[in-house]
Amino acid sequence: MAVVIDFKGQRRENAIPALDRMSALVAEDLVKVNQVIVNKMDSPVPLIPQLAGHIIASGGKRLRPMLTLAAAKMCGYQGDRQISLAACVEFIHTATLLHDDVVDASDLRRGADSANAVWGNQASVLVGDFLFSRAFQLMVQDGSLNVLRILSEASATIAEGEVMQLLTANDTETQEAAYFAVIRAKTAKLFAAAAEIGAVVAERPESEQEALESYGMNFGIAFQIVDDALDYSAEQAKLGKTIGDDFREGKITLPVILSWLRGDDAERVFWRRTLADLEQEDGDLEHAIALMNSHSALSDSIERARHYGATAKDSLGIFSESPVKQSMTGLVDFCIDRAY
Amino acid sequence: MAVVIDFKGQRRENAIPALDRMSALVAEDLVKVNQVIVNKMDSPVPLIPQLAGHIIASGGKRLRPMLTLAAAKMCGYQGDRQISLAACVEFIHTATLLHDDVVDASDLRRGADSANAVWGNQASVLVGDFLFSRAFQLMVQDGSLNVLRILSEASATIAEGEVMQLLTANDTETQEAAYFAVIRAKTAKLFAAAAEIGAVVAERPESEQEALESYGMNFGIAFQIVDDALDYSAEQAKLGKTIGDDFREGKITLPVILSWLRGDDAERVFWRRTLADLEQEDGDLEHAIALMNSHSALSDSIERARHYGATAKDSLGIFSESPVKQSMTGLVDFCIDRAY
Repeated sequence: MAVVIDFKGQRRENAIPALDRMSALVAEDLVKVNQVIVNKMDSPVPLIPQLAGHIIASGGKRLRPMLTLAAAKMCGYQGDRQISLAACVEFIHTATLLHDDVVDASDLRRGADSANAVWGNQASVLVGDFLFSRAFQLMVQDGSLNVLRILSEASATIAEGEVMQLLTANDTETQEAAYFAVIRAKTAKLFAAAAEIGAVVAERPESEQEALESYGMNFGIAFQIVDDALDYSAEQAKLGKTIGDDFREGKITLPVILSWLRGDDAERVFWRRTLADLEQEDGDLEHAIALMNSHSALSDSIERARHYGATAKDSLGIFSESPVKQSMTGLVDFCIDRAY
Repeated sequence: MAVVIDFKGQRRENAIPALDRMSALVAEDLVKVNQVIVNKMDSPVPLIPQLAGHIIASGGKRLRPMLTLAAAKMCGYQGDRQISLAACVEFIHTATLLHDDVVDASDLRRGADSANAVWGNQASVLVGDFLFSRAFQLMVQDGSLNVLRILSEASATIAEGEVMQLLTANDTETQEAAYFAVIRAKTAKLFAAAAEIGAVVAERPESEQEALESYGMNFGIAFQIVDDALDYSAEQAKLGKTIGDDFREGKITLPVILSWLRGDDAERVFWRRTLADLEQEDGDLEHAIALMNSHSALSDSIERARHYGATAKDSLGIFSESPVKQSMTGLVDFCIDRAY
């Protein structure tokens, strides 16, 4: 009987276990992190745990706190400080998501019914502020000024990155360097901080802290590139996922930048109309994807991501082999391979 | 020649110097605080210092950082930690103002042209987050976990207060206790923290830290009550100031609560229509003010403020007399007397 090897299927099979493997390795800690999250988002004002709980519950895979847990474990840490600090990382991430909602919702609300959106806006800003403050209270309880320094710097950088992103939105002449400055700040910096903290609590030498910071930074860059590419993935659309959000908002991401640089005048007229002027018609998203594919802009974006992913994995070279380390390198591949 | 004593004029004459006297006493520190503010709001992203600078420049009297400076001085502190911590307090206050703008602007934008408002919304959220993070970076530089604890708790409480305020908005049956819970959290807590920090840097005994916390808390409550009463002040309107903002938004403040409690059924129909349903017509604000005056709701609000003001001043009883202490008690009177 002939065996047909389905390359994509095989890769997926290898890839998915990477996330599961990491989850399994830090499962006990992850349960405790979730407990801290539930306890610490409590407030005498019921709307706060309601809204925060909703967002945190739907918030996905706990990727960032898992980085802290895995890094601490790889560093051989035996204590429990990683628990509350992983919760801090998730709180900061959730606060950012809530504030992003305001920024994005503002756009989407143009001309739409505003009553609910307004209420959502108000609550999102304030509950975000609350979670952000709670994160700092948790860090103060932990008592490490070093951790406080790392995460307060990360928070300031995230805000800077988001403002930079606003400034490049709808600017089709955004350079690749400007795009990388944005994603380093808004996404990768928190990945870097989350991983670095694992070495900090384990009181490992500076070289290991830097290695983990580099792992997180490069992983975060790869992660965001892939995320941005997925927003134009016909494959994702077939799976029933929404695509084209960035296109509709006129966000300038790597596939757009590469398509612009490689495109002719007529194509640039198209990009300007759709992304700068936001004058979009039926079929424009499909045409954008077709242009991207004609210039290999999506596959080359993933290649760029692979470069950063490779750097991330190499950063862990100074650590000896272990199941946790394997799960950390495997996770990088998993996040890049989800693009297929 | 007969001398006519103008009671109001005389009070104003005594009162205004209280603010000037405090400014003069901490003038040197205040200049340094402003330098820290300018330096620390800098960012490679030009929009951030532009927007933050605009808000901070127009931000008024630096009341909160002055509390830190004056408290430190009253405690005999000789160092300079109060400088950067006063800047932190102002950053947290400014971040709150920026986020309030989003919350309030969302309301005002109903049906209005949204393009500028949207841009303002996005930038306000993100620059607020940036300033908030910067405040924590400054605290980390200062290195006191105690200060970090005080200000991270204050920040979380402010957010809780703002959410509570959202929940009581348009609810004409809001109780006086709920109103006080809101203003304690959203306003008075930061006053309390600002003053307390003065004793903390001076390493004064706990009793003095508590006294200053109580001073700030009670002063902050008085301050907010007066602020809320001024929004219905015909006198303010004559001076060309905008009044009625709270009325138009359906915010339930103390003058409304007292008028509701003391009013008859017909009056409650009026309050429900204007504040719960936000169905407002020409002349409604004037009618609201007339109802308030018929129940002494405005003057009794100020009496409530005086009560908290008196408690604030008494809190400083354990400190020996000094020009700074006099300016701190004088400032309480000044803030209450501005209602006239």
